[in-house]
Amino acid sequence: MRLKRKDLLGIEELERDEIELLLSTAESFKEVSEREIKKVPTLRGRTIINLFYEASTRTRTSFEIAAKRMSADAINISVSTSSVVKGETLRDTAKNLEAMRPDCIVVRHSSSGTPRMLSRYLACPVVNAGDGAHEHPSQALLDLLTVKEKLGSTDGIKISIIGDITHSRVARSNIYGFTKMGAEVTVAGPPTMLPPGIEKLGCRATTSMEEAIRGADVLMMLRIQSERQAEPLFPSVREYSRLYGLDEAKLRAAKKDVLILHPGPINRGVEISPDIADGPYSLILDQVTNGVAVRMAIFYLLLGGVKEGLQEGVKA
Amino acid sequence: MRLKRKDLLGIEELERDEIELLLSTAESFKEVSEREIKKVPTLRGRTIINLFYEASTRTRTSFEIAAKRMSADAINISVSTSSVVKGETLRDTAKNLEAMRPDCIVVRHSSSGTPRMLSRYLACPVVNAGDGAHEHPSQALLDLLTVKEKLGSTDGIKISIIGDITHSRVARSNIYGFTKMGAEVTVAGPPTMLPPGIEKLGCRATTSMEEAIRGADVLMMLRIQSERQAEPLFPSVREYSRLYGLDEAKLRAAKKDVLILHPGPINRGVEISPDIADGPYSLILDQVTNGVAVRMAIFYLLLGGVKEGLQEGVKA
Amino acid sequence: MRLKRKDLLGIEELERDEIELLLSTAESFKEVSEREIKKVPTLRGRTIINLFYEASTRTRTSFEIAAKRMSADAINISVSTSSVVKGETLRDTAKNLEAMRPDCIVVRHSSSGTPRMLSRYLACPVVNAGDGAHEHPSQALLDLLTVKEKLGSTDGIKISIIGDITHSRVARSNIYGFTKMGAEVTVAGPPTMLPPGIEKLGCRATTSMEEAIRGADVLMMLRIQSERQAEPLFPSVREYSRLYGLDEAKLRAAKKDVLILHPGPINRGVEISPDIADGPYSLILDQVTNGVAVRMAIFYLLLGGVKEGLQEGVKA
Repeated sequence: MRLKRKDLLGIEELERDEIELLLSTAESFKEVSEREIKKVPTLRGRTIINLFYEASTRTRTSFEIAAKRMSADAINISVSTSSVVKGETLRDTAKNLEAMRPDCIVVRHSSSGTPRMLSRYLACPVVNAGDGAHEHPSQALLDLLTVKEKLGSTDGIKISIIGDITHSRVARSNIYGFTKMGAEVTVAGPPTMLPPGIEKLGCRATTSMEEAIRGADVLMMLRIQSERQAEPLFPSVREYSRLYGLDEAKLRAAKKDVLILHPGPINRGVEISPDIADGPYSLILDQVTNGVAVRMAIFYLLLGGVKEGLQEGVKA
Repeated sequence: MRLKRKDLLGIEELERDEIELLLSTAESFKEVSEREIKKVPTLRGRTIINLFYEASTRTRTSFEIAAKRMSADAINISVSTSSVVKGETLRDTAKNLEAMRPDCIVVRHSSSGTPRMLSRYLACPVVNAGDGAHEHPSQALLDLLTVKEKLGSTDGIKISIIGDITHSRVARSNIYGFTKMGAEVTVAGPPTMLPPGIEKLGCRATTSMEEAIRGADVLMMLRIQSERQAEPLFPSVREYSRLYGLDEAKLRAAKKDVLILHPGPINRGVEISPDIADGPYSLILDQVTNGVAVRMAIFYLLLGGVKEGLQEGVKA
Repeated sequence: MRLKRKDLLGIEELERDEIELLLSTAESFKEVSEREIKKVPTLRGRTIINLFYEASTRTRTSFEIAAKRMSADAINISVSTSSVVKGETLRDTAKNLEAMRPDCIVVRHSSSGTPRMLSRYLACPVVNAGDGAHEHPSQALLDLLTVKEKLGSTDGIKISIIGDITHSRVARSNIYGFTKMGAEVTVAGPPTMLPPGIEKLGCRATTSMEEAIRGADVLMMLRIQSERQAEPLFPSVREYSRLYGLDEAKLRAAKKDVLILHPGPINRGVEISPDIADGPYSLILDQVTNGVAVRMAIFYLLLGGVKEGLQEGVKA
């Protein structure tokens, strides 16, 4: 089975069986990173370009490690050292890179829709590594994998996504992803952070933190991304934290085996208290580990690795 | 046959048979980038350092991809993250890098002559990836390869190079290259952009755009590099574009199968109109594709790849 | 034999036999960089992260080359392109990177103790690539190797370290290293650059340049790192140079076969005159060459390369 598209631009357009394929492929690649020799020859001789217009440690590193563990050549281009300062259009940058025959371009950009625009210009697969407040599909896939690993399935589970829903591409991708995979999704945050009509995506919305917590199997705390807000959406960080930050007191209303996710990087003491971030229900580091496996799966399914390679790599 | 020198510093000093060797070697490597597994073992275990004192996307990426497709290890050093800020001399930087036993250093620098200076200090091959307004030899080689592919030969063809000739290392390398390879070269631009005595390099010079276009087999439009001009060389970009920008109207004076080159990144609507940049005569993306092959050839000829590797790589 | 620890944080805690093991291992790896194919399969499939919070050319490049010559995958993260700007704690950055299953993290940071802090959080080996004014252990190891190569042994030799002792992590690591390895260490500099009580580390201290030079087998000149001094420690660079810069005149007091080291990058004409830096007694470039070998040894001993790999790599 294969994906029904050449690119991974968002979760919105994926069908459930494609998500399942991505997750099961990721599961099969996961053990590669636990080996002493963390490398499969699957994508040897393929060139993967990481084109990052926004700074990133974890996402760029995760894609780079995933590429290298598949034996692909990874080329990093970050905006600060690139000729985009010279005023070249995005399309020209894309066509020029394509002319060097990469097998995949991973792109992060502050403008929503940039990866889709690129994908129209390019014959090679494009992977969205986060575009504005639109989507961050590999993040949603790793979140789905993390929950599925713990609960066996996402069908019928209740997940609440809490924070600045309006500006969060992580929220958007996860609403699509968990809804498609059978979960009941609630989004929560102060009124200024809940976009009107968000329910149309298939989720419930509430401004009540207690309502979001009660009965949820999974709580996904979002990072307060003050750098992406044109104007402050709440009076102060302290005020936000008091009302919507997850701490021991608020957690008492939760199910006793609730799972806690956060896409990172975390603001300790703002949206999540340190004891909870490091506590027994936190899956934050599992998410990061699963991120590498999910990105290996994305590359594998989009690039169509050499079959012998995979056999040798995954089965051996 | 081999090159008669240890470095590739400029086209000026190359003999015609060396250029032909570089081009025919590039042709033989070109198909590597069209394979599913884009990798030959030719330069396995060699270390190639890309030492870039100027920002660059395409050139650095092209050299890096070329190195990796030859199985060499590529090390990128860009000025912003380097200790040159600490005031070390260029010679000391070079000697220190050499002490780590690289097999080749690719250097881009804003000062003319920097690669030559480096080459005197270094036992390993030095490749000029662009130095000030001096030379950009790998660019000229990829331009030659692109024209040769389309026309079969460069002997007797007419090429016009149009733009800021004074400040263009691309122009300079191409004047040397096309002249040596039997072409008639005309350079054209406003008087402020035509260096006095440029004809001594073996080309004609004109301020008439019409004269440059008429009868030419190839038009090479140069990027208006406002960042490299101490003072403006024309009243306005609009004025430049009206007089020297290539558009449909001006192209009517050209031969009907004229070929159009541009080293990129292009300023759409300045030196070239979008419809022409994307039109049927434009070879801009072929140039980029050929850039990888040319750089693989440069590495191969300067580093003397393992013979078995090449057999396996190029013949198999 | 193996190291008695999982990390290389400093020379202070190493036992003499561990230093000897590191040096003899480095010696065995040194010839790899002199081969045509500079690569051993020893660490194939291992992931080494270079996490640099301070700019660096030579150290980062040296670690990267060492990793690649061992066939490891090297991932570079520099502070300017990283999400540390988003305010994540160092511990969270570390735990997140660890969750991607690297086999080693090399860290440079302007704060003393950062690598040790990281090592407590991380199961994988941590290598200190320089932390504040604390330690720079790989530098001391390469210095020891360089002296041992020339003199056969460090036992009983006299070494003087000259410059800003207070702010130098190179001085500190070398005091520990040479003392443990049987050398007599003298540190010298103006009173403002000699920390009170430095003798407790087992060295002598003097403000007399002549005393430091006379009878020494090795002179190690330190870089004047004006960027690390909160306030000037001497009236002027010229004044410093006149009193403590090594030049022909001062060198007349030295033993006739004295060896001269400098960790680089050198300030020509400040702490060392150009003729001496490039002269017959200077081992500055040997130090750089040995740096790659020492870092290969560090990776080998901390990561426990595949035995077969080593056989094939080092013996073959």
